[in-house]
Amino acid sequence: MHDTIHGLFSPESIALYGIPRGLKAGKVFFLGLLDQGFQGPIYLIHPSATEIDGYKAYPNLDQVPGPVDLVIIMSPRETVFDVLEECARKQVKAVILYTSGFSELGGVAGRDDETRMRRIAHKAGFRILGPNCMGIYSPGSRIAPFPGMPKTSGKLGFVSQSGSLVNMFVNLCSAKVLFFSHVVSSGNGADIEPADLLEWMGRDEQTKVICTYCEGVREMGRLIDALRETTPQKPVIMWKVGLTKTGSRAAASHTGALTGQAELWKSLFRQFHILDVCDIEEMCDLAMAFYHMSPGGEGRVAIVSGPGGPAVSAADSVERNGLVMASLGRESIRRLKELLPPTGTSCSNPIDVGLGASFDIRLYQEALEIIMDDPEVDCVVMLGGGASEEMSADYVQGIIRAHERSSKHMIAIAYPGFVQIDQAGLLKPLHEHGIPVYPTPERALRTYARMMGYYRFQASRV
Amino acid sequence: MHDTIHGLFSPESIALYGIPRGLKAGKVFFLGLLDQGFQGPIYLIHPSATEIDGYKAYPNLDQVPGPVDLVIIMSPRETVFDVLEECARKQVKAVILYTSGFSELGGVAGRDDETRMRRIAHKAGFRILGPNCMGIYSPGSRIAPFPGMPKTSGKLGFVSQSGSLVNMFVNLCSAKVLFFSHVVSSGNGADIEPADLLEWMGRDEQTKVICTYCEGVREMGRLIDALRETTPQKPVIMWKVGLTKTGSRAAASHTGALTGQAELWKSLFRQFHILDVCDIEEMCDLAMAFYHMSPGGEGRVAIVSGPGGPAVSAADSVERNGLVMASLGRESIRRLKELLPPTGTSCSNPIDVGLGASFDIRLYQEALEIIMDDPEVDCVVMLGGGASEEMSADYVQGIIRAHERSSKHMIAIAYPGFVQIDQAGLLKPLHEHGIPVYPTPERALRTYARMMGYYRFQASRV
Repeated sequence: MHDTIHGLFSPESIALYGIPRGLKAGKVFFLGLLDQGFQGPIYLIHPSATEIDGYKAYPNLDQVPGPVDLVIIMSPRETVFDVLEECARKQVKAVILYTSGFSELGGVAGRDDETRMRRIAHKAGFRILGPNCMGIYSPGSRIAPFPGMPKTSGKLGFVSQSGSLVNMFVNLCSAKVLFFSHVVSSGNGADIEPADLLEWMGRDEQTKVICTYCEGVREMGRLIDALRETTPQKPVIMWKVGLTKTGSRAAASHTGALTGQAELWKSLFRQFHILDVCDIEEMCDLAMAFYHMSPGGEGRVAIVSGPGGPAVSAADSVERNGLVMASLGRESIRRLKELLPPTGTSCSNPIDVGLGASFDIRLYQEALEIIMDDPEVDCVVMLGGGASEEMSADYVQGIIRAHERSSKHMIAIAYPGFVQIDQAGLLKPLHEHGIPVYPTPERALRTYARMMGYYRFQASRV
Repeated sequence: MHDTIHGLFSPESIALYGIPRGLKAGKVFFLGLLDQGFQGPIYLIHPSATEIDGYKAYPNLDQVPGPVDLVIIMSPRETVFDVLEECARKQVKAVILYTSGFSELGGVAGRDDETRMRRIAHKAGFRILGPNCMGIYSPGSRIAPFPGMPKTSGKLGFVSQSGSLVNMFVNLCSAKVLFFSHVVSSGNGADIEPADLLEWMGRDEQTKVICTYCEGVREMGRLIDALRETTPQKPVIMWKVGLTKTGSRAAASHTGALTGQAELWKSLFRQFHILDVCDIEEMCDLAMAFYHMSPGGEGRVAIVSGPGGPAVSAADSVERNGLVMASLGRESIRRLKELLPPTGTSCSNPIDVGLGASFDIRLYQEALEIIMDDPEVDCVVMLGGGASEEMSADYVQGIIRAHERSSKHMIAIAYPGFVQIDQAGLLKPLHEHGIPVYPTPERALRTYARMMGYYRFQASRV
C-alpha cells in the first residue's frame, strides 16, 4: 500500500485537469509548478480552450500524447467520475482531487460518492488524495500547490487536513529558515488517510520531525497503528481540532471529519507521547526546537539577560515547566564577578549582565563564554541586544561563535520591543546557524521543557 | 501624599546628576529628554566637566541658577546621600534615583540605606522614585528615559518594577498604535511603592487601562488598599513574577523585592478581578482588547474566515474559553447561501468563505456585512486576506468600513504566514481605526473571553 502513496511525491509528468483560464483559485496549482520549476511535462486539460497562458491545452486525458503520472483535478464536481475513469484508462499513478462538495456537505450522497471514488482508484491501481484538498508540496520534486513557496528542502514533514494551512505553516516556518521534506493536504481523505501519510512520513528518511493538523479520521484503529509505528521513530507534533462540541461541528462541515471524543484523543497523546498543540504558533515553536536541538543534557538551564525583568520571569518559567535552574560552578561565579560591574547586575543564575551591556557587547559575549564552559549547564537562554544595529550584529555573532564551539543547547530570545534585534535581518544568521529563536523566554522554556520531556520518554522506551 | 507624587510627572525643570560623558547607560536619560523635546531647562551636573555634548555642566545642584523640580541621579552609589542633601537644600519636588547597589544586593546595609533615603526625602518634602530604576515616561510632559520613544500620548498606564521593560513594552505597544499616558519604573521602591503608583494611576483621568509588572511589595496591606480603590475604576492587568521559588530568588537580586506567597497573590487576583498574565505578549494582548473594546453585548462570537483549518480551531477556542458561538439568524444564512459558492464554503458559524475569496474580496466584504446586520452576533472575528497586496488592502478597508458603521466588537486576525496582510503596513490602518489585531484566533479569543469576564464582573459589582 505504501509504495503506491510514493507515486504522489515523485511524478515525472503532471496533468492539471480543469485549470481555470483567469486568475481563480485553481490557478495556484499551475503557478506553483511553474514557480518551483517542475522538470517534467505539465499538461493542461480544459473542455474548450486550446491554449491557456501560452500553454497548449488538451480537451481530455486521452488526447495527451505521453504518459501521465499525477493528475490534479479541479474540474466541477459533476465531472469528477468521468475524469477518474479517464485516469484509469490513462494508467496514472496518483490523483490529487481539489474539487469539493462531497462528504463535507454532511449528506449520505457525499460519503457514497467518496466510496465510489475509492473503488474506481483501487480497481485501476492508482491512489487519490482528497477530495477537497490542496495536494502536495515537495520541494525536492519541485511540486507546490501555491506559487512563492520555498525551493529549499528540509527535514520537516507536515500532514494537514486543511489546505490553506499548508501555505501558511510553510510560510511561517520558512521565515525562520525551517524547511520541509514533504507537505500533504489530505482534505476529506476518501482514499489516502492522515494515518497513511503519517506512516509514510515515519518511513521517509528525509523527514525528521512530523507536524500534523488533524480534524478527524475514518478509522481510529488505522491511526493507532500508524502512531504505534511512527512515534518511536521521530517526534509527532499534532494540532488536533474539533475536541469541543463547537469545533467538532465546524470540522464536519470543513472536511466531513468525525472528530471523536476528547478523552480518547488525550489518552492517545499520553500513550504515544504525541506533542499536542492548540495553535499554529505552538506547532511552529515545537517544530523549531526539534529541528535544531538533538537529545542531550539534563535540561539544566542558565539564563543570560541584559533586561532584568524578563530574566526574573524566565526563572519562574524554568520552575513552572519542570526544568531546573543550573547551579553555576564556583569558577563561573568568580569569573562573572570579575567581569560584570558590581551593581545593576547579578552573577548568580539568572545572570543579569546589566543595562550597560547594551553599550558594551563584550559583557554579553564573555558572560556567555563563562557559562558555556560550566559543566553544570546544559542549556543557555540568551536575552539581549545592542544599543545600535552594529552592536546587535556583534551580539548575534557572539552567540553564533559560542554555539559553534559547544554541544550545549542554545536558545536566543528576540524580545518584543527590543527593536535592534528584530530589525535588519539580524535574526536570520541565528536561524541559519541552527539556533532556535523565540519571542519570549516563557515561550522558549515551555517549548524546551516539552522537547526534553519527549527525549526522556524516548530514552526510557529504548 | 498623592499630590506629591504628581511632581514626578510634570516638572518644569530637570537636573541630570552624574551624567556620563561618553555613550554609557546613563546617557539615555539625556537623549530621551532631547528626543521628546522637553520644554523646560535641563541642567547637567558633573564633578569635573564644564561641558558635555555642547551643553554647559555644573559641578553640583547648588551652582544651578534657577529652581529645579526634578533631579535624575545617576552618580556613583557612594555619592548618593550627599546628592540627596543637595536636593533637600535646592527644595526639589522629586528625585529619580537610577543608581543601584542597595537592597537588591541582599544585605542589611542596602535596606538601611533605603530607610535613610526615605527619611531625608520625607524631612525635606520631596519624593524618591527608585533607587535602581529608569524613572518616568510621560509623553504629555515630554519626558522619556530612552530616546526613540513615541511622542504621542494615549490611555495606557504602566507601572513596572523593571526599567528595561518600560522601553520594551512601550515599543511593543506603540507598534500596534497603543499609546501611553504615564509609565513608571519603580525599581527598589524605597519611597514610592508600586501601590502608590497604582493608586495614582487609578485617579489619573487620562489613564484608562493600567498594566503592571510586579516583583513584590514591602507592605501587602498598602497594595490591597490600592487595589481596592483602583480596580473598580479601571482594569488592572498584572504580570506578577517571583511566584515560584526560583523566580522569587531572582527577583530578590533584581530589585530586592519580597515576592511573597503564590496562594496569597492568587486570591488577590480573584478578589479584585485582576487580569493576571505571565508574559509580555499576554499583557499586550489584553491591553489591546481593553484599549479598543468597550463593554457591550453578550459575547456571542461569529467567525468569518477564508482558510478553513484556523476557523475550525477558532470554534474550539470559543467553547474552550467559555464563550458562545453566535447562532446565525435565518435571514443571514439565506443571504450567505446566496452569496457564497456552494462547495468549499460553509454558511453556518464559523463562516468559511472559501479559498476563492482571496481572489474575490467582495465575498469577504459582503459576508462581513451580513454578519454585522445579524442581531444574534456581538463580536466578529475576521480571518483572511487577499491574493495580492492590492486585494489585501481592499480586504482591510472592508473591515474598517464595517467597523465604522456598527457598535459590535470586531477583531482582525493577521495569521502567521498570510504574508499579504503582514507586510506593507496593511495592519496599521486597522490599528489606527481601533480594531484589535491578533496573530491567531486562539490568542484573540482567549483575550476576548477574559475581557468579557472582566466587564461582567464590573457590571455585577455595581
